[in-house]
Amino acid sequence: MKLYASRENLLHGVNIVQRAVATKNPLPILSGMLITAEDNTLKFTATDLEMGIECTVPVTVVEQGSVVVSARYFSEVVRRLPDIRIELEVNPNNHSTNIRYGQSEISIHGMSPEDFPILPQLDREKSVTINGSLFRNMIKQVAFAASSDNSRPIFTGVLLEINGEQLKLVATDTHRLAFRSGKIASSQNLDNLSVIIPGKTISEISKITGEDSQVQLTFTENQVLFEIDNICLISRLINGQFPNYNQVVPQGYKSRIRVKSKDFLESMERASLMTKEGSSVVKISIEELSMNITSNSPDIGRIYEQVQIYLEGEETSISFNSRYLLDVLKVADDEEVYLELTDSLSPGIVKPVGNENYLYLILPIRTL
Amino acid sequence: MKLYASRENLLHGVNIVQRAVATKNPLPILSGMLITAEDNTLKFTATDLEMGIECTVPVTVVEQGSVVVSARYFSEVVRRLPDIRIELEVNPNNHSTNIRYGQSEISIHGMSPEDFPILPQLDREKSVTINGSLFRNMIKQVAFAASSDNSRPIFTGVLLEINGEQLKLVATDTHRLAFRSGKIASSQNLDNLSVIIPGKTISEISKITGEDSQVQLTFTENQVLFEIDNICLISRLINGQFPNYNQVVPQGYKSRIRVKSKDFLESMERASLMTKEGSSVVKISIEELSMNITSNSPDIGRIYEQVQIYLEGEETSISFNSRYLLDVLKVADDEEVYLELTDSLSPGIVKPVGNENYLYLILPIRTL
Repeated sequence: MKLYASRENLLHGVNIVQRAVATKNPLPILSGMLITAEDNTLKFTATDLEMGIECTVPVTVVEQGSVVVSARYFSEVVRRLPDIRIELEVNPNNHSTNIRYGQSEISIHGMSPEDFPILPQLDREKSVTINGSLFRNMIKQVAFAASSDNSRPIFTGVLLEINGEQLKLVATDTHRLAFRSGKIASSQNLDNLSVIIPGKTISEISKITGEDSQVQLTFTENQVLFEIDNICLISRLINGQFPNYNQVVPQGYKSRIRVKSKDFLESMERASLMTKEGSSVVKISIEELSMNITSNSPDIGRIYEQVQIYLEGEETSISFNSRYLLDVLKVADDEEVYLELTDSLSPGIVKPVGNENYLYLILPIRTL
Repeated sequence: MKLYASRENLLHGVNIVQRAVATKNPLPILSGMLITAEDNTLKFTATDLEMGIECTVPVTVVEQGSVVVSARYFSEVVRRLPDIRIELEVNPNNHSTNIRYGQSEISIHGMSPEDFPILPQLDREKSVTINGSLFRNMIKQVAFAASSDNSRPIFTGVLLEINGEQLKLVATDTHRLAFRSGKIASSQNLDNLSVIIPGKTISEISKITGEDSQVQLTFTENQVLFEIDNICLISRLINGQFPNYNQVVPQGYKSRIRVKSKDFLESMERASLMTKEGSSVVKISIEELSMNITSNSPDIGRIYEQVQIYLEGEETSISFNSRYLLDVLKVADDEEVYLELTDSLSPGIVKPVGNENYLYLILPIRTL
């Protein structure tokens, strides 16, 4: 294998696939990335066996071939290369990988490409396409609500549903639930689907999706393939039954508060400082013209926050975990939000005033 | 105590003195900061008993007084306050500290100001003044060479010498030594002095010194006081005899290399990737027109770097710890540096081509 490449293209490939490199894995080959030169492209591949990423960049191939290099050291080298033409040459006998730039040369050890796992080839029969910046925004508004507790795998994933032209994402850790829908751009043999995508997969997708990209999603029974520009990400799906979110979302409310998102967020940030270590409980009292947020930590002190609101319905009061409110207020993406309440034991709902496609449910905390 | 202040002024005071708050200290009072209202100023004070900082900001005092508040919680609160007029009121009976903004209020616990240690008042007889940006630059070029090994306290400090109009800073960890001199702006009863300032003190000084500030240094037998704008920092000195740096700096050289700092730095960064874990040894061979840097890690691979140079004197070769070269190349502040060598067992000297006031000595590593 021998080729010429720019530092920029090498760095792009390295940065993209490094996300799939196994960080804690007993198999040494999985700490590497496979690089394959063919047809004036260089393909980077990495996988932790749960998720695999391929990224293809343009290079000038002199001799085809492939090698597995240490992901850590190869990327550290590429990051520090000068911005001049780089020559990459692999000795097929010992997999030694030579990187030449100007009069200088680095040689790093390689491993046999034959030992690297082959990513599955998916049948591209059923697929949908969605706008990249829309999909990224949907992920940002939903993925944080998933659980990080691996003992109940379903809740660590994000439910992805397709119904006709609508793509829906839902995540919950059983204390709160985030729901977002968006319109797909086109579909092929697919108008009804419900799968659970691992949380790590979905957050990596949001990081590698550019503003102007289109994301194509292809589904098989156990796997999903995302194609974005020159990148393919393939991931297993999580098996199991996601809870029926329609059943938990309350229909109607007794009190609806309209409030400036920034005011609500900043008050909640201050109030969260004054909560008991480990509990994060804040009390919210709704009056005609104001929302009063209070919390009290015996060790630190107490807070009384008054936020201007517009109220429809009854005065009421309820307690929440401040972290769950902070999470949604940071991503609500609208100048104003609604907070809909029924009573102090029923879930509250947060919705951006200007976006009917987003809904966030949060369970109250029972207090004395 | 009662006063009105802007968030910006409170935040400035908090940010400055927080650097002196004891992070690991058995005395609870030292995890606090003393705030004292008098004559339309609010004075913040913190100390870890090694170093103390005072910072005074303008406020509108309604009632004089003082209190000690938790440095951690008070600064977290101040950071999150809205940018409106803040009222601060302390209940002198229980030291409860009330922070009011708009219709909202935070109350945090306070401690008695009488329990807070009093910073020593220094006799301002002997002092010098130096330009802030010059002093900051001098510290940047020297302080990193001090040791972090507390078993030999002298080497954790920075030697500060005054000889007539010259202020000199020197630091060494016994493997390398950095020396920088600069001209003082004015002096009072002081033209000869040699003291050792703790490394932590000197690095905090460089962080709080603004570009346009003047720094006034006042010395007593065991302490130094730095005054910068509205900030006073007082620190103990380190007792002991600093090694005579004039004796270790070689007079003359057999080879002098002139090289672009950026080229040398980038080559050294790549070469340092390919060094043995824990050793960081790189070999430098000087030829007529080039410097060749090589290193070899059995686990990772090897590197050969060629850098263009201009050589005066003999061809030679020597080995260094790459980290010590990287440190100086990052702060040399000149487009080109000299590397002066005598033989493979004698120290090397790095100097910026355009600045005779800076010198960096580095001991070679004996290799086979």
